[in-house]
Amino acid sequence: MKTTSDRLKRDWKDLEGAARNGLLDRRAFLRGGAAFAAAITGYSLAKPAAAEPLADDPWSQVPGANSPPYEKRSRHEEKILRTLSNPNGEPRTQHARSPHHLLNGTFTPNGLHFTINHAGTPDIDPAKHHLVIHGLVKQPLVFTLDTLARYPMVSRMAFVECGGNSAPFFSKEPIQASVQALHGLVSCAEWTGVRLSTLLDETGVDPKAKWFIAEGADAPALSRSVPVKKALDDSMIALYQNGERIMPGNGYPMRLLLPGYEGNMNVKFLRRIKLVDQPGMSYYETRTYTQLLPDGKSLQFNFLQEVKSFITHPSPGLALKGPGLYEISGIAYSGNGRIAKVMVSADGGQSWAQAALQEPVLSKAFTRFRLPWKWNGGPAVLQSRAWDESGDVQPTRAQIIAVRGESKRVPPVTAFPGQHYNGITTWAVDENGEVKHVYA
Amino acid sequence: MKTTSDRLKRDWKDLEGAARNGLLDRRAFLRGGAAFAAAITGYSLAKPAAAEPLADDPWSQVPGANSPPYEKRSRHEEKILRTLSNPNGEPRTQHARSPHHLLNGTFTPNGLHFTINHAGTPDIDPAKHHLVIHGLVKQPLVFTLDTLARYPMVSRMAFVECGGNSAPFFSKEPIQASVQALHGLVSCAEWTGVRLSTLLDETGVDPKAKWFIAEGADAPALSRSVPVKKALDDSMIALYQNGERIMPGNGYPMRLLLPGYEGNMNVKFLRRIKLVDQPGMSYYETRTYTQLLPDGKSLQFNFLQEVKSFITHPSPGLALKGPGLYEISGIAYSGNGRIAKVMVSADGGQSWAQAALQEPVLSKAFTRFRLPWKWNGGPAVLQSRAWDESGDVQPTRAQIIAVRGESKRVPPVTAFPGQHYNGITTWAVDENGEVKHVYA
Repeated sequence: MKTTSDRLKRDWKDLEGAARNGLLDRRAFLRGGAAFAAAITGYSLAKPAAAEPLADDPWSQVPGANSPPYEKRSRHEEKILRTLSNPNGEPRTQHARSPHHLLNGTFTPNGLHFTINHAGTPDIDPAKHHLVIHGLVKQPLVFTLDTLARYPMVSRMAFVECGGNSAPFFSKEPIQASVQALHGLVSCAEWTGVRLSTLLDETGVDPKAKWFIAEGADAPALSRSVPVKKALDDSMIALYQNGERIMPGNGYPMRLLLPGYEGNMNVKFLRRIKLVDQPGMSYYETRTYTQLLPDGKSLQFNFLQEVKSFITHPSPGLALKGPGLYEISGIAYSGNGRIAKVMVSADGGQSWAQAALQEPVLSKAFTRFRLPWKWNGGPAVLQSRAWDESGDVQPTRAQIIAVRGESKRVPPVTAFPGQHYNGITTWAVDENGEVKHVYA
Repeated sequence: MKTTSDRLKRDWKDLEGAARNGLLDRRAFLRGGAAFAAAITGYSLAKPAAAEPLADDPWSQVPGANSPPYEKRSRHEEKILRTLSNPNGEPRTQHARSPHHLLNGTFTPNGLHFTINHAGTPDIDPAKHHLVIHGLVKQPLVFTLDTLARYPMVSRMAFVECGGNSAPFFSKEPIQASVQALHGLVSCAEWTGVRLSTLLDETGVDPKAKWFIAEGADAPALSRSVPVKKALDDSMIALYQNGERIMPGNGYPMRLLLPGYEGNMNVKFLRRIKLVDQPGMSYYETRTYTQLLPDGKSLQFNFLQEVKSFITHPSPGLALKGPGLYEISGIAYSGNGRIAKVMVSADGGQSWAQAALQEPVLSKAFTRFRLPWKWNGGPAVLQSRAWDESGDVQPTRAQIIAVRGESKRVPPVTAFPGQHYNGITTWAVDENGEVKHVYA
């Protein structure tokens, strides 16, 4: 949904630099010394330390554990998990959501990358798995993992987001849930593999081919139709995720990666690509992943995950512990390319300050934004709003609802209908430091 | 060791573009079509595919497994592990080495990041762990994880390398071992945390402070002295590793990160930083991590991990399967900053071709280099050589040995003495496609 207009751009530009309710300039901490002192005046974070000797903790007085061949997290971190929509594996879709409020940085570790599977995760023997490219090509070819390993590879950071991520925002009332429950169906990883265009150079492409159908080796043989133009652009047969072989839940031993396109189109367990002259009109593209509109029509082949951001720190469940300095930080991304700017408000959108963007800012990947904030202990209403390099701006919730309507149903938060919500998220902080989800 | 000279730079420049024994131009595959066809002429990688219907594999015919709360690798990948020098936890140092020949991309997943611990990994309760900054400061302060979470954070990719990585290259004869055994004590991750300079803004720094001593909470209380200049540059108190809390073996709950400096100086389990006017002359900096020179003197406070590269694919254990197209790829990095160029030879250094560098090329982080190669089935001698943005060039093994001498001892490959080897690595490919470690 394109919501950018010159008027909107101008209005927002005027607000830059205005930053009421404690938002500090993003460069405050790069300036060091004086700016920092100003930020912490009247509030202490760290406590004065005693002189030596320091006390020795018990773990410093005995030899520690052996290093395992595959490092595991500390037992104190084992509670940081994906939440499952279908933990008993009933015969329906399974969602596993990323706990963004408990992570930091610019991407998602492999253990916590979100995944959705419509009939569980197949146990694929990589030595027996094949990828076939056929249909409107000059020479149909079959590829094994061994042959793919010999082709020129590329690596890139890319987010993958379910079209249904953030669906609870279509609810009439704001649902009280964590950022994991509300926005946990998006993650970001470094993917390494072979460009699809390299393989199509070898098969040759019949000029009549306008689409390709990608099909997975999972039980429902999930398939989606993708324009050939995307195949010749940045599509990848991904073999590695964050350095190691891709995880079972993310398509082991290979998946299609279509940077910026709706998650399910990035077909997992990829077993064939058929070049065709028209879309396949598969179950998943005609029924599951279309967007119903208020007039009864639906949006089909709505590929792009548009510009979006949300604040992860603070967020529901991460209460503030007394007034003083905090870092507001969150994630921004766009299927159009790079994030250009993120603005943050602490007064419900009355005034805005520009957040710092963590370098390098990469196309179609998570960008971490950060802004120092001096909370005075009073009520605050936090929002973030992102712009991308195409000039697209993240819409308000009201703008999205005006076009798409609210949901009449009140299902559980983890099974909410609705697709492609990329509007603003609002957190209200009360005088106790508790953070609530509100509409503003 | 600075080995760059104008003469050397000029000599190497003359060799750019010359690429005998099958090395292809790095841009061949970006040009597509014709160039690709030329590259594969006479050799097929993929096999012609039959028309539909495709056979269904057994795993496509039944529902798959439930998604777990923390995703695990496929059971077919469980053999990809770190190798341990001390698996039974005897009272001596433990090394766990990264399997670079089985990974791809630009960094190391958390399960496979290398680690070295001198008395095991302490089991630290993060709620009870403290970091004290004291000594020559205006106000000594104590920080908990909760308070650190409120400070402005930064994220950056950075390699960490043990000063003793690649020590087997000091052996008189080339030791036959995998790239994991030879170069496995280096890894790369995204680290997120608080700049040390931000915390020193708060404590204030006495102008008499020239060094700081960083000390860990492990049983030996490993400590190292670092110039204050580095503290005010890019030092970080790292709290997150690749998005999640740092791994126990990498210093949970916090470590010092000194990008580009010798691994053990990046003190793990960090519990205090004391600002002082001279180095502490600790056990680990006077005994363990000094470099003995042939004349009986030693190099102390040799911090920088200098420009280096090695080929991971192919490498010992990854035999070539018949003539034709392959991708040569590997890792390059420098403690000085960004990698500027990597050259690859297939004829033992007689001719060189420039490799493609995976973007983004980041300072003091792994850079993946790649070059397509058409192996004719005959003997080949593969080498890579890296340059960094400071103009530093990776030395030959002979240049290093001339200064530092060969080792007289013949210990096991995993316990070789020697520090700071950053010379060229050479792999010899024989007519069967087997890859051996040689000196050239």
